[in-house]
Parts: sequence; C-alpha cells; structure tokens
Amino acid sequence: MDALNRIEQALETALALGTGDGNPGCPPKLAAGLRHAVFPGGARIRPQLCLAVARACGDADPRLADGAAAALELLHCASLVHDDLPCFDDAPLRRGIPSVHAAYGERIAVLAGDALIVLAFQMLAHSALHAPARLPGLMGIVARRVALPSGIIAGQAWECEPYVALPAYQRAKTGSLFAACTEAGAWAGGGDPADWQPFGLCLGEAYQVADDIRDVALAVELLGKPQGRDVALCRPSAATEMGLSGAIVHFDALLERAVDAIPACTGAAMLRAIVRSESERLVPQATVRDLALAA
Amino acid sequence: MDALNRIEQALETALALGTGDGNPGCPPKLAAGLRHAVFPGGARIRPQLCLAVARACGDADPRLADGAAAALELLHCASLVHDDLPCFDDAPLRRGIPSVHAAYGERIAVLAGDALIVLAFQMLAHSALHAPARLPGLMGIVARRVALPSGIIAGQAWECEPYVALPAYQRAKTGSLFAACTEAGAWAGGGDPADWQPFGLCLGEAYQVADDIRDVALAVELLGKPQGRDVALCRPSAATEMGLSGAIVHFDALLERAVDAIPACTGAAMLRAIVRSESERLVPQATVRDLALAA
Repeated sequence: MDALNRIEQALETALALGTGDGNPGCPPKLAAGLRHAVFPGGARIRPQLCLAVARACGDADPRLADGAAAALELLHCASLVHDDLPCFDDAPLRRGIPSVHAAYGERIAVLAGDALIVLAFQMLAHSALHAPARLPGLMGIVARRVALPSGIIAGQAWECEPYVALPAYQRAKTGSLFAACTEAGAWAGGGDPADWQPFGLCLGEAYQVADDIRDVALAVELLGKPQGRDVALCRPSAATEMGLSGAIVHFDALLERAVDAIPACTGAAMLRAIVRSESERLVPQATVRDLALAA
Repeated sequence: MDALNRIEQALETALALGTGDGNPGCPPKLAAGLRHAVFPGGARIRPQLCLAVARACGDADPRLADGAAAALELLHCASLVHDDLPCFDDAPLRRGIPSVHAAYGERIAVLAGDALIVLAFQMLAHSALHAPARLPGLMGIVARRVALPSGIIAGQAWECEPYVALPAYQRAKTGSLFAACTEAGAWAGGGDPADWQPFGLCLGEAYQVADDIRDVALAVELLGKPQGRDVALCRPSAATEMGLSGAIVHFDALLERAVDAIPACTGAAMLRAIVRSESERLVPQATVRDLALAA
C-alpha cells in the first residue's frame, strides 16, 4: 500500500475509535464536525513526512509509524479547527470548504478540536498495543511538540503577546509539528529521533515561510482560504517583514538547510528528492516567483 | 503524605512539565492562564476518588496512581475552561474568581484548555516511565472517558443537539470522568477496572444531579459561580425535570446505588464513609433540604 493510502486508512481507524463507528450513542453533530475536520484532507504533508522518515530509517515498526502519522495529522487538524475560530482567524473557509465553525457552529468547533487532540493520543496508544514499551517515548516526542513551552499551542499563544521574534514564532507554530513528524518517524522506523530533529525544524520553518508567501501572492482559488489574512490580522509574517522577494530567498535557504540536515541513511536520496519537489509545489515558479520578480 | 498533598504536588509536577518551569521561551499569558485554570483548585474530588480507589485496591503503584489522578484533574480543568467560554456558558466566574477567558481573554482560554488536555496525556506518560507496559491500558481508560462516543466531550456536545435523554447526558457529561477515576485508580492500585466502573458512573451521575440542585438552590457566594445558569441556558437539569424535591430523592437514590456498587475489598468501608460524608457536603441539610421542604 502506498503512503497516502496508509495514511487515509489510519485516519479512518482513528475516527472509528472516536465515534464508535456510527454508534447511535454518539452526538451526531460532533461526529459530523470531527469527520469534516479530517476529510477530505489537504496535502497530508505531515503524516507523509513521518512515514517517509520511518521508511528511510528501515521501517522497523510500520504499525507504530502509521499510528504516529495519523496522530500527528489529527493534531494538525485540531489546530486548524481552533485557529479558524472567530476569536482567532475567524476564517469562513478551509481547504476550499466551510471551516468547522462555519458549518457546525462555534461550540462544535471547540469540541471537535478537543476531541481530535484526545483522539490523537488514543490512536498512539492503540497503535502501540503490540509494543507498549515503545509508547512513553513516542508520546513524549508528540506531546512536547504540541504543548508548552514551545509546541504548536505555544506558537499560537505567541499571537496573544505584544511581541515575538519571527523565527521563534514560526519554529513553534509550524516547525515543532514537523519536528515531531521526523522524530516520531525515526522512533517508529528504528532511527534516533535526535538525529532527525534539525531536518524537521528546518523544513517546518520553510513551510511557514511558504505559507506567508502564498498568503500574499496567491489567489483565493489556489489557497482554498481567504487571502491576505496575515496582514489583516497583524500576524507576524516573513512576507511582511522581508518583502515578497526577501521571503522567497529565505524560503530557498531554509529548504537547502533542511536538505543538508538529512542524516546519512539508506533513504536519504529519496528524502532529498521529496523536499526538492515540494519546493515547486509550495512556491511555484509561474505564479509566485515571476510575480515577485515583476513587483 | 496525605491524598490532597499528593494531588497538589502531582499537579505542580505536571505544570512544570508543561511550562518548562518558568522557561523564558514559554508564552507568558498562556502559562499564566494554565496556572489560573488549575490553582487554586476546587474540592479535587476526582483525583481524590482515584487515589481512594487505588488505596482500596492495595496501592500497587502509587506513582502511576498520582499521575492518573493529576491527569484526570487536568482534564476536568480543561473541560471547565472550555465550558465557561462565551459560546457555551459565558461564565464570568469559576470557583469564586474570574474564569480563564474573563481574566485572560477568549483566545488564551481556548489554548489553555487545549494545553491542559495535552498535558494530561504527557503526565500519564511521565508517570508510567518506570512501568511502560501499564501505559496503553491506562491511556485507554482515560481517553475513552473523555472522547467520543460517550466521554465528557460527548456530554458537552449533547448540549448542541435538539434533544437528549437526561440520564445519557449526565452519564456522559459527569459520570464518565468519575468512572475514569475509579477505573484508573483500580488499574494503578492493582484491582480490576471493570469491577469499579458501576461505582464511578453512579457517583458521577449523583454529582451532576447535586450540581443541578445546587444551581437552583444555593446562593452565588456558596457556588462560586452564577446561580440559575441551567435554567437560563435551557440546559437539561434534574432540578428542572423533577423539581427540587424530586431531584433530592433522585440524588439520595443514586448515592445509595453508588455505595452498593463498591466492590468487596479491604478499603470498602473507608470508601462508603467518604461517599456518605460527601452527601452532606453536596446537598446540605440546612441550606438545601430544608429549603425544598419549605417550598
């Protein structure tokens, strides 16, 4: 089975754990809100990264890797649902369809985010039933990258402070979950998580910079969400701080650093190829780089 | 060390995991909101129940029991912070002081609830480092009682549905976390969690009925939160459905069923005494029962 199929199947397994597979005892709006938050997905880049690193390390425990990949995607979805709430971004759209609070109301959106966080940890435990001794370490990796002091929740909380340095904000808000993907992939695949941390952090920071660039440069049809939100919300943004061209130079440098940080392993060439092809997908020549040159 | 001290210390350990013990890299408002949500606590009845059951079962693993107790209290605190949000109860007060969103704003309240959920699972993993094989089972117990289809998040979600049967709502909203306390206590103490489920569910349902009674009968100074919220918010309530006297009869019957459900063990007499003394604390003769008689 290819990676994307493994991921979708693991996410279905997780949702079935959570909603009791159509259990009539489950509140129907929340069950629907949960599904809406997870399917159809975006690029599933985080779980793909987790599985790619696990494979590069030897794929010692595919079941654990699938569980970690699904859990990390669920945590990403939870953060999107809460980020979109009226008190944060007040975003009516996500992935081209109504955001969870727009479709089901604010209360269901709050609870769906909560339920997704719990489900992520449930999925980790479920996927480690055959190897319980590996669970505390995996949970430690995942929780640390989500929680305080410097996980994605901390990243979001920096938006409530009067000042934050851009790199610290981006490292927490996006880099940390990417680091969780490379570390958890290594853990499940048989590698050393510490060796894989710099690659994840660097790649995640590059993704956040790409997001800033796309927020300024791309039309709403391509983004699947409203454009120019960072500026409208006074959000720290590489494109605002460095200008569009400066942000693109920074993005390219971060991707190069990410490539250089890939540890020596049998799958290193495959990972380098993935990173380079992502570069064009994230910051396309035709719509973004040419635009920056013309500006 | 007595149970309450053990609980406060375990909660401090958890908060230190989460905020990195005053780490300057931690966003200060969220760190403060997290502490505000946990200290000073209420009666800490859930973690006390967890430790009492662990003790009644032989206290086989006190470190695991402390971790479970703290995790369950953190999950309870998370649910209070999110329940108090403007889109739910819009409660300005909690435990006699401003609710988290009243003190720190809605965004910090959303994130504090999220961070407390993650921290609960982090604490479980931390407390099982010496006995990793016991972690998946403990996580399964805790997660099931929080998540869909019938945990406390599901209980809250029933408030978004046009109709819910009162017992199913109360069992999910309050009973489920009490069941987690008795089950997790048994798991850590060396008992069989399944034997302890009916006691927890029954006791939790009694607590929710007591809460409904107190919401109608007690003055705001005693409650530490605004009075009459269930009626104002059209919330399912035993006091509304059965009248104050009917609800008190129901409460007494539930407590008797809870006492009868305590499994045979060395600590059974101690647990029975705790339940009976809670009865007077929750639904006091002078302020509530006499009021119902006079009505």
